[in-house]
Amino acid sequence: MKKLILTAALAASFTAQADEGMWQPYQLPAMADELKAKGLEIDVKSISKLTEFPMNAVISLGGCTASFVSPKGLAVTNHHCAYGSIQYNSTPEKNLLQDGFLAKTYAEELPATPGSRIYVTEAVTNVTDKVKQGLADKVGNAFYQGIEAKEKALVAECEAEDGYRCQVYSFHGGLEYYLVKQLEIRDVRLVYNPAASVGKYGGDIDNWMWPRHTGDFSFYRGYVSKAGKPADFSQDNVPYEPKSFLKVSAKGVSDGDFVMVAGYPGRTNRYRTANEVENQFEWAYPEGKMLRERFIEIIKETAPEGSDERIKYESLIAGLANYAKNFTSMIEFYGKSTMLDDRKGREAELTAWINKDSKRQAKYGETMAELDKLIKESQDNQERDIILGYLGYTTMLPTARKLYRLANEKQLDDMAREPGYQTRDMTRFKSGMERIDRRYAPSVDKAVVLDLLTRYAALPASERIPALDKAFGLGKKFDAAKLSKTLDKMYAKTELGNKEFRLAWMDKSVSDFKASNDPFIKFAVAMYDTDMAQEKKEKELAGKLMKVRPQYMDAIIAYNKELGKPVYADANSSLRVTVGHVKGYSPQDGLHAVPFTRLEGILAKDTGADPFDAPAKQLELIKQKQYGDFYMKSIDSVPVNFLSTLDTTGGNSGSPTLNGRAELVGLLFDGVYESIIGDWGYDTDTNRSIQVDSRYMLWVMKYLDNADNLLEEMEIVH
Amino acid sequence: MKKLILTAALAASFTAQADEGMWQPYQLPAMADELKAKGLEIDVKSISKLTEFPMNAVISLGGCTASFVSPKGLAVTNHHCAYGSIQYNSTPEKNLLQDGFLAKTYAEELPATPGSRIYVTEAVTNVTDKVKQGLADKVGNAFYQGIEAKEKALVAECEAEDGYRCQVYSFHGGLEYYLVKQLEIRDVRLVYNPAASVGKYGGDIDNWMWPRHTGDFSFYRGYVSKAGKPADFSQDNVPYEPKSFLKVSAKGVSDGDFVMVAGYPGRTNRYRTANEVENQFEWAYPEGKMLRERFIEIIKETAPEGSDERIKYESLIAGLANYAKNFTSMIEFYGKSTMLDDRKGREAELTAWINKDSKRQAKYGETMAELDKLIKESQDNQERDIILGYLGYTTMLPTARKLYRLANEKQLDDMAREPGYQTRDMTRFKSGMERIDRRYAPSVDKAVVLDLLTRYAALPASERIPALDKAFGLGKKFDAAKLSKTLDKMYAKTELGNKEFRLAWMDKSVSDFKASNDPFIKFAVAMYDTDMAQEKKEKELAGKLMKVRPQYMDAIIAYNKELGKPVYADANSSLRVTVGHVKGYSPQDGLHAVPFTRLEGILAKDTGADPFDAPAKQLELIKQKQYGDFYMKSIDSVPVNFLSTLDTTGGNSGSPTLNGRAELVGLLFDGVYESIIGDWGYDTDTNRSIQVDSRYMLWVMKYLDNADNLLEEMEIVH
Repeated sequence: MKKLILTAALAASFTAQADEGMWQPYQLPAMADELKAKGLEIDVKSISKLTEFPMNAVISLGGCTASFVSPKGLAVTNHHCAYGSIQYNSTPEKNLLQDGFLAKTYAEELPATPGSRIYVTEAVTNVTDKVKQGLADKVGNAFYQGIEAKEKALVAECEAEDGYRCQVYSFHGGLEYYLVKQLEIRDVRLVYNPAASVGKYGGDIDNWMWPRHTGDFSFYRGYVSKAGKPADFSQDNVPYEPKSFLKVSAKGVSDGDFVMVAGYPGRTNRYRTANEVENQFEWAYPEGKMLRERFIEIIKETAPEGSDERIKYESLIAGLANYAKNFTSMIEFYGKSTMLDDRKGREAELTAWINKDSKRQAKYGETMAELDKLIKESQDNQERDIILGYLGYTTMLPTARKLYRLANEKQLDDMAREPGYQTRDMTRFKSGMERIDRRYAPSVDKAVVLDLLTRYAALPASERIPALDKAFGLGKKFDAAKLSKTLDKMYAKTELGNKEFRLAWMDKSVSDFKASNDPFIKFAVAMYDTDMAQEKKEKELAGKLMKVRPQYMDAIIAYNKELGKPVYADANSSLRVTVGHVKGYSPQDGLHAVPFTRLEGILAKDTGADPFDAPAKQLELIKQKQYGDFYMKSIDSVPVNFLSTLDTTGGNSGSPTLNGRAELVGLLFDGVYESIIGDWGYDTDTNRSIQVDSRYMLWVMKYLDNADNLLEEMEIVH
Repeated sequence: MKKLILTAALAASFTAQADEGMWQPYQLPAMADELKAKGLEIDVKSISKLTEFPMNAVISLGGCTASFVSPKGLAVTNHHCAYGSIQYNSTPEKNLLQDGFLAKTYAEELPATPGSRIYVTEAVTNVTDKVKQGLADKVGNAFYQGIEAKEKALVAECEAEDGYRCQVYSFHGGLEYYLVKQLEIRDVRLVYNPAASVGKYGGDIDNWMWPRHTGDFSFYRGYVSKAGKPADFSQDNVPYEPKSFLKVSAKGVSDGDFVMVAGYPGRTNRYRTANEVENQFEWAYPEGKMLRERFIEIIKETAPEGSDERIKYESLIAGLANYAKNFTSMIEFYGKSTMLDDRKGREAELTAWINKDSKRQAKYGETMAELDKLIKESQDNQERDIILGYLGYTTMLPTARKLYRLANEKQLDDMAREPGYQTRDMTRFKSGMERIDRRYAPSVDKAVVLDLLTRYAALPASERIPALDKAFGLGKKFDAAKLSKTLDKMYAKTELGNKEFRLAWMDKSVSDFKASNDPFIKFAVAMYDTDMAQEKKEKELAGKLMKVRPQYMDAIIAYNKELGKPVYADANSSLRVTVGHVKGYSPQDGLHAVPFTRLEGILAKDTGADPFDAPAKQLELIKQKQYGDFYMKSIDSVPVNFLSTLDTTGGNSGSPTLNGRAELVGLLFDGVYESIIGDWGYDTDTNRSIQVDSRYMLWVMKYLDNADNLLEEMEIVH
């Protein structure tokens, strides 16, 4: 009996069932009948072509998704995706987070936070053969460098056309490579955001939760030069005119309706091995959760509520807390699941299938064992690596290292440089350096570094890095007070906290760095050889994995092909389409989550205190049952958020949720708590995405914020 | 618009709508059509007659309800109602709470905790005229004493027949009086209880909560003399043979089905005035919650987990926690409700109705004002009174006071004594004195008294009681260390902790008490005159209220009569019938509580740690889907608990939940968190009772505990 269940689980896990699957647009035409049966009304070909409606209205913000909703470059995304820009434009006197913001004219629109971009995907090309050409006999670091060189060349060629940003994406762990060409709009402006008490209603408490009542939407606009080309911010720029834009539905969807999402999901792990699953859930998530929670505590202790320092770290706190909660759910639901056994089972099935045929055996016979060996190797120093990894969330140490790395990389030809240090990266590099001013306080940075180095110092001697020990004077016997003093001196003396100073270092030479007395610069110089050696070691391993993992995926794909089933690739921040339905679920025996929440739920939740402090005007409108044009009969109210079976993950935030006619019926902004573990495996019973209902968005715009100019600008379907 | 809503609320609050109402059986025949339409299949007359099936199978345990389920006096009630008896029979070596208990033969059945009784109601007589006769011109204390004397005379007359316990119940605040005659079975034995990990599954965490998975049932048996008369415990006694008993349904109910409950609900406050509501929710509940939570903390601090002292206080902790949670819900949902405005509105409506007619005005014109004045008066010293009230939950101080009161009362004729101190009360009095051994630890008692007296000492001088101050040497400047020492000496010296000693004091004279050097006896003697003066003051006020509140209720009843609607009285621990339906509810916008939980919910909740530590055998049975005869198709499992709209409250615990044919389909054991405030007003949307499903009870008996002898003894309807 157990065996049978395992077989069923295997089939379910390896291939897309029901509403599972993050599809590359080119895969969709083959699924035309299924999509039509589910409820797709427009021609499936249109969603497989990036240059046609509706796909060319779906854009990336880098980390979030958005969509054009007017012919004048108006783009809608989540409030939490525009959060940085809202915060960037806020001052104690004019707090846009607190009060919301609405530009009534183009002139009133505000520049988004430095480095903000709108990426319009214009072409996706399979470049697998080009990337792999001539590298068949390379291994390890050589293979890694070989692939990287090919990628850089393809990118450079692609970016030769002005105003474009290109990137090569690896699919199935390196089985396939696609070159993505995106128009890069550099002048992005904040147009409208509701108050945080609407846009972030429920805050961290409701984050990942259902029932939900969050108005998680905001509006940007892309600007280009008068010639219609991407350009830096300028008063002379004009709104970008997209090739197409989405109509917004005032009718919305009902329980059971077809919905689809086009967006840029970040990362999933649906094809990771049992060993990876075990290590991740039984070691990495618990450890990461602990480190994140401690990180937050330290920030809160060091930067008390209401302080200037605290304001600078709110965004980092939110990010850390978001994934601390994510990890908590991962751990909880892993404990309740049979995931590890299922993975082992499906690997056993795959092995059995391989062993049934001598050709397969010749091709894949060693794959699993090799993959496991490399995975094991990658975990060798993980206790140390995770601590050093979290040092990457601090400011001064990585800043100094990046600046010195830049000086070193600049000695090379542009094409030979490490990605991130090429000329094409300099704008982003610079805005990163500028942004620090608003997100850095020495007291906090020092406290976190002290905590992490204290953990590092407690590791066994074999895990210690001599250069690091030397840089901070860490001896065999750890002296916390001494380290604290050392750090105090470093933060007191460094000038890297000064923006002009920091930017000046972008243009200095290696010898300038070596001559510097700035304590963090000295640290970066002292660590450099060690850092490079470590990176080389990692690339060696990565290169090996880039050969073996594709073999493993190739076996999985071949196995499924025999079953007549397509395989979607793990998410990798490239454009995907997922289809599903409006549907509730059972979060717990005895409870059913219904698919829509209502305006009245805001009244019931409201305590008057953050994060349940809806604007007084909104509460009054609800008490008066001011439903207006956005009333939904079946729930006798205006719907606020709704649930769907859509298969999404982080990066999908802000994605337009479309009905069968490709009208915008909602904005995806979250998943339910039970589906967080869905990144590792889609569960038909509990995998639910949460959307802001378009009717609520329009209701807030019309009745609460009087955003008539935008309602006028958009095309609303009644 | 607002006005209209208030009128609707008024009608809904004053009279029974939908499934609201705790009806006296005599009221039911007038509602025959409605009951039939709802789903009652048996003749309504049978549930209005106490001496017929099924009503004569429904019995009281005093504080809980039970029902006979075999011709041999087998009675089923809640696990939490039998908790004291299970605890009483447990030792560290043989822990019936932990392991469960099943008597396979009569001989193996264990005596219930001392004082346990089964009361079989045999007659309920309206004695209003008799009670009130000749008291029309009496007021205050004289009226109170007059009523009490009449009641005592009626009780004495009724109890002249051996083996009966009688009581006069006041309805509508004294508008009507009913004499209830109950057979009093004094030999009660514990027959079977599942392990606490089934019977108390979810513990305090799940208490008042849905979803719920508690097997809250246990079995008692009543024994009588060979002649069939109530008798003290004796090996010669034989099982009581009830006039009828309930059949137990193995089919159970479905969503929407008719259900009814007969039981002994303790107390509701549906007709309290706006002033009473305001004071209760805005002062008394918050204060009571704080005192209870502090009380629990002190017990836990003083008697650490695992100590002998802690075992003695588990029952008190559970009781305190139960109502601390109850009060928390009251406060929460009051804050969200419009209850106070509704009450004010309905009082305004009533006043308007009274003022429309000069006759009514003459009769009720002053009633509201008088009632409000008396209520205000009763709150005059409430900050002190609540502290002194909680002293009543401690042991030594009230024990000494009761014993000295007894010595004083004994100087009077039996009929002139205070209720509770008459000869008829002595068995109960004695078993109360005996029970102390298992529920008292000097260290805990002292710690709580110290805390409460510290609060008392902080009150303004005007609130202080000279005799009490003197008894504990409380001066103007409070000295906690000194009081602590005083108490230490008292607890070290007193002999009232010794059972024989305590019982001996039941037979001593007033002068014996006055001559005693026992510190608690001395305390009782010193307080006596003050205590009596306070009691007299309270009775004076109570006597006044007993004249005015009936006028108020009379007005409400008259008003409703005009609308053609019956009025049910607030619960008063007398036998009531309530009818309703199996039905879920929405605990929160976006969530629906479905009416049945499933066996699989236990698997999902189980953590292996108390209170989510189901027996390993049970988990295994569930994993194997061992549903047997108790499978419910619509939920694809065995139902564990279910929700109904039944209007119930504390005291209803253990009530048989019956289907339309009066078969037992469940045992009522709780209400949902949102309906706790229902004691003050029934809400059709959220008022839900929680039942153990009879199918789960039978499943546990059959598959988990192998209680075949009992399954054989009961009549099970398949």
